[in-house]
Amino acid sequence: MQLPPLSSGVWGVVATPFSGSTLDVDETSLARLVEHYEQVNVTGLTVLGVFGEAAQLSTEERSAVLETVVDAVELPLVVGITSLGTAPAIEEVRHAKDIVGDRLAGAMVQVNSPNPDVLAKHLRAVHEATGAPIVVQDYPLVSGVAISAESLVRAVRDLEFVVGVKAEAPPTPVSVAALTAALDVPVFGGLGGLGLLDELAAGAAGAMTGFSFPEGLVACVDAWKEGGYDRAREVYTGYLPLVNFEQQAKVALAIRKECLRQRGLIMESSARPPAASMPEALREQLVRHLAAVPVPEVVR
Amino acid sequence: MQLPPLSSGVWGVVATPFSGSTLDVDETSLARLVEHYEQVNVTGLTVLGVFGEAAQLSTEERSAVLETVVDAVELPLVVGITSLGTAPAIEEVRHAKDIVGDRLAGAMVQVNSPNPDVLAKHLRAVHEATGAPIVVQDYPLVSGVAISAESLVRAVRDLEFVVGVKAEAPPTPVSVAALTAALDVPVFGGLGGLGLLDELAAGAAGAMTGFSFPEGLVACVDAWKEGGYDRAREVYTGYLPLVNFEQQAKVALAIRKECLRQRGLIMESSARPPAASMPEALREQLVRHLAAVPVPEVVR
Amino acid sequence: MQLPPLSSGVWGVVATPFSGSTLDVDETSLARLVEHYEQVNVTGLTVLGVFGEAAQLSTEERSAVLETVVDAVELPLVVGITSLGTAPAIEEVRHAKDIVGDRLAGAMVQVNSPNPDVLAKHLRAVHEATGAPIVVQDYPLVSGVAISAESLVRAVRDLEFVVGVKAEAPPTPVSVAALTAALDVPVFGGLGGLGLLDELAAGAAGAMTGFSFPEGLVACVDAWKEGGYDRAREVYTGYLPLVNFEQQAKVALAIRKECLRQRGLIMESSARPPAASMPEALREQLVRHLAAVPVPEVVR
Amino acid sequence: MQLPPLSSGVWGVVATPFSGSTLDVDETSLARLVEHYEQVNVTGLTVLGVFGEAAQLSTEERSAVLETVVDAVELPLVVGITSLGTAPAIEEVRHAKDIVGDRLAGAMVQVNSPNPDVLAKHLRAVHEATGAPIVVQDYPLVSGVAISAESLVRAVRDLEFVVGVKAEAPPTPVSVAALTAALDVPVFGGLGGLGLLDELAAGAAGAMTGFSFPEGLVACVDAWKEGGYDRAREVYTGYLPLVNFEQQAKVALAIRKECLRQRGLIMESSARPPAASMPEALREQLVRHLAAVPVPEVVR
Repeated sequence: MQLPPLSSGVWGVVATPFSGSTLDVDETSLARLVEHYEQVNVTGLTVLGVFGEAAQLSTEERSAVLETVVDAVELPLVVGITSLGTAPAIEEVRHAKDIVGDRLAGAMVQVNSPNPDVLAKHLRAVHEATGAPIVVQDYPLVSGVAISAESLVRAVRDLEFVVGVKAEAPPTPVSVAALTAALDVPVFGGLGGLGLLDELAAGAAGAMTGFSFPEGLVACVDAWKEGGYDRAREVYTGYLPLVNFEQQAKVALAIRKECLRQRGLIMESSARPPAASMPEALREQLVRHLAAVPVPEVVR
Repeated sequence: MQLPPLSSGVWGVVATPFSGSTLDVDETSLARLVEHYEQVNVTGLTVLGVFGEAAQLSTEERSAVLETVVDAVELPLVVGITSLGTAPAIEEVRHAKDIVGDRLAGAMVQVNSPNPDVLAKHLRAVHEATGAPIVVQDYPLVSGVAISAESLVRAVRDLEFVVGVKAEAPPTPVSVAALTAALDVPVFGGLGGLGLLDELAAGAAGAMTGFSFPEGLVACVDAWKEGGYDRAREVYTGYLPLVNFEQQAKVALAIRKECLRQRGLIMESSARPPAASMPEALREQLVRHLAAVPVPEVVR
Repeated sequence: MQLPPLSSGVWGVVATPFSGSTLDVDETSLARLVEHYEQVNVTGLTVLGVFGEAAQLSTEERSAVLETVVDAVELPLVVGITSLGTAPAIEEVRHAKDIVGDRLAGAMVQVNSPNPDVLAKHLRAVHEATGAPIVVQDYPLVSGVAISAESLVRAVRDLEFVVGVKAEAPPTPVSVAALTAALDVPVFGGLGGLGLLDELAAGAAGAMTGFSFPEGLVACVDAWKEGGYDRAREVYTGYLPLVNFEQQAKVALAIRKECLRQRGLIMESSARPPAASMPEALREQLVRHLAAVPVPEVVR
Repeated sequence: MQLPPLSSGVWGVVATPFSGSTLDVDETSLARLVEHYEQVNVTGLTVLGVFGEAAQLSTEERSAVLETVVDAVELPLVVGITSLGTAPAIEEVRHAKDIVGDRLAGAMVQVNSPNPDVLAKHLRAVHEATGAPIVVQDYPLVSGVAISAESLVRAVRDLEFVVGVKAEAPPTPVSVAALTAALDVPVFGGLGGLGLLDELAAGAAGAMTGFSFPEGLVACVDAWKEGGYDRAREVYTGYLPLVNFEQQAKVALAIRKECLRQRGLIMESSARPPAASMPEALREQLVRHLAAVPVPEVVR
């Protein structure tokens, strides 16, 4: 029996704010950030993803992040799983489930093999050991694994516990089209919203990404549902200069956190090394972009 | 004595149109395409670049391309050099010079080593053997060579025959900022115009790329000069949905050529294998994007 | 005050044997394997390294591996740390220290940044939080991080708690020469012993690798100390056909475990997916190589 | 009708010697080098391959290389084709055929697509335009193209003009086994002979590589034919320390040319930049290896 799929719309990929020279997890900022997400009507949140710097957090810190989010908002949660190996992935899912409980809309597991049988077995093992619904993330830049859309379909199509796919293998609109044509579960775009219009046109159920103005993503997806391309384009175009600025190789995380800080959503914008810090040469332009973004209502 | 630098503005990277099942160079389409470039007031043209599929052309075909362009328009020309090795690069530059003559604004040579001394020696050898002004292209995705901005500055700053740099190592605004701070020659963005606003803010002299609506690039660069960020953003934003659609990994060339075809600028959109062909799943969206692009004046 | 460096010689990188269709950690085989290492007089063991499939083990399984090894032999232990992030690396080192105690000769931490300052800060943070001596592993194929030998020297030379370097960035003899010229701590070769003769000639203190005949590595290093190149070559050459066979891209782990199984050192040769399994096409050749290896004394 | 396949045995991949500060092609050394190959009874020569630095040579220099080799020896020749594009590859093959004529045993064309249909069409186009027998080179490190053995078989099996395959996608013995099981044409190992014993065991027809002691390759292949594994191992093992030393990432070309120089087969060992030069740290070891190699008869 197919588990209920992820709801369509925007799933905000939550940054993990740090504070001070010791870069401790800043739970106050984190709570404020996810409350903002709730206010702008995202469908759900994705916590401990790549842009949540999960690979930089200890188990205890991951607990703190999950607890803070669970306490701060009522939204359904997808929890990112960092490990590519089956046994440690199971350990991570169990840990998340202990904290998130019924709020766990899905454990997001990365593609760990180009071989559909190996991948299917991995996903099944994680599900069977934990009972968790599984979201499959195809993000070759991070996983180091390149799978064809055809193989991904073969791996996933008979897995009744897979509740969504996050498609981040460029060209993503092509991937989204192939996946949505062959799968019953929703497929989400990522990559900061760079190709959101095209992913929606290809059948995407929404976006799952960490763009610093989730309002823009929500407005775009809503507009698409109501008015198709023309309406979505009208709504989203004003965000694209910032989207493109933010989704830059190597410095995307630093830019994004600084945007969140300047919006007042987090207190400090530091990322944990070895992540790059905000390039000073881009600071003025960041301010310009933020000033020009079409925010419908002022956010506290 | 420093050779005169490339003029700022937009240098259109010219596609090579093909026709029929044999994919012969379509000189008629090529002439029409570059005439369009001239009509929309680009500063110059870049011929035989990566997106001109130079690596797919025989020597004879390269001659035909250069001759066609030289005959069709009066614009200054940058000619792309495919080889990374010194001796074959010299051979290519000589060949180009024989045809282009005084119209050769620069031979565009790729970075072939992360070592500044090795690179400088390569560039000097090419210049000394040919007398050609040199444009340096830093495009690691194609060359396979990753050089730091610092090393690129060290390689280039004392070379009086270098007349421009094309910066295509992401994050390009950071590279452009570093290069323009240390070099006297103009630095151009590329990559389809994806980061043009940010590259201009970082000091870029313009864009050198093959976006299918060079009008948009010209309008953006002109607006930047006149009114800075706000004006450029206003003008350029409407192009960004198509820019992002076009500049997709693996399928950018196919999309771009199909856009040019639908605009009536070339007769057929085929690219030479092993380049990917236009994904059918993207065709409808391409039409939508083209219909929505803000073309100021109708093109024949 | 400089912590005492690792002893020179051979550090055996210990495989993790699994059993049955569930691929549980086979502690009996593991104990037998490390006892063999002790019998053949290795200097110490490296546990939970890349070839120990540490990235495939849960925390509980890592405990079991460490406990088994600690109980089975008296050898000093280097413990591999899988995470590249500081906080989770600290968590891993603490976990290892809890089990291994004073037997911890070093926590082996991977290079996580090409920037020497970032790397030094990471190493210092791990040491200061745990008190553990640190072995630095430069293995770009696994870490995804390429650091120059010059930067590695700058990162490491003033860190009094670094007790060794494992140099696995090809060409390794060149790296070893650069590192041993500038550092006081021992540098070890890896990569299955493929370049052991050349690494020793470049100043390596020995080998830290998982070749299935550690006898050969020990004999080679001993011979080098006694008689230099000629003696080491004489001793080692007979192992090279197997070394080269074993150290093949993608299938090295599978081959190595099958060699260990055929030697009777472990019961089953399975590796955890997505690791490749033993190619059937190579099985006969494996048998031939094993039959021809110059084992001085028969091992049960 | 299937063209006659390449003869089994050793095809020496010929280095291009340079002389002086201008690094001109040294035709005298080249002639001496190929005469040595003939004396040691190689089956044929591969000229203008990757290790012949073909990508660093002008058309005129390529002519000089081919003419020198044609004049100096009677051996059949495989000519390496540098371009991955169809049109320039055809141009290269025509150029080679003009000089080599009937001595052209094959034009060695690189895999340029992972898609078997695209690759087959490319190979067919090159053959049909030139009449040349085709040797297919699968060398992903150089071509940047990774094709599965299955796809390579599908591409090649019905092409009656393919006369051999050079398998250089590690793990090569696995590739060789898959290719020889499905194809009628001979498959050759490369990569400096690192896996020669295993490639022969997998069905390879011989080696096509540039190891500085082709005597060793010839002796190994001959021994394999006569006495199988045991005999080949006995003969080849003494060369393995030098094989491994020579076949090092990044510096293989420099080491190989210096070995050839020290053997007296070429006058100077320089390679054209950006190729690395011989690391001084390895020089002593090179001398040791050369002194220890089991040359049956002294070569002038």
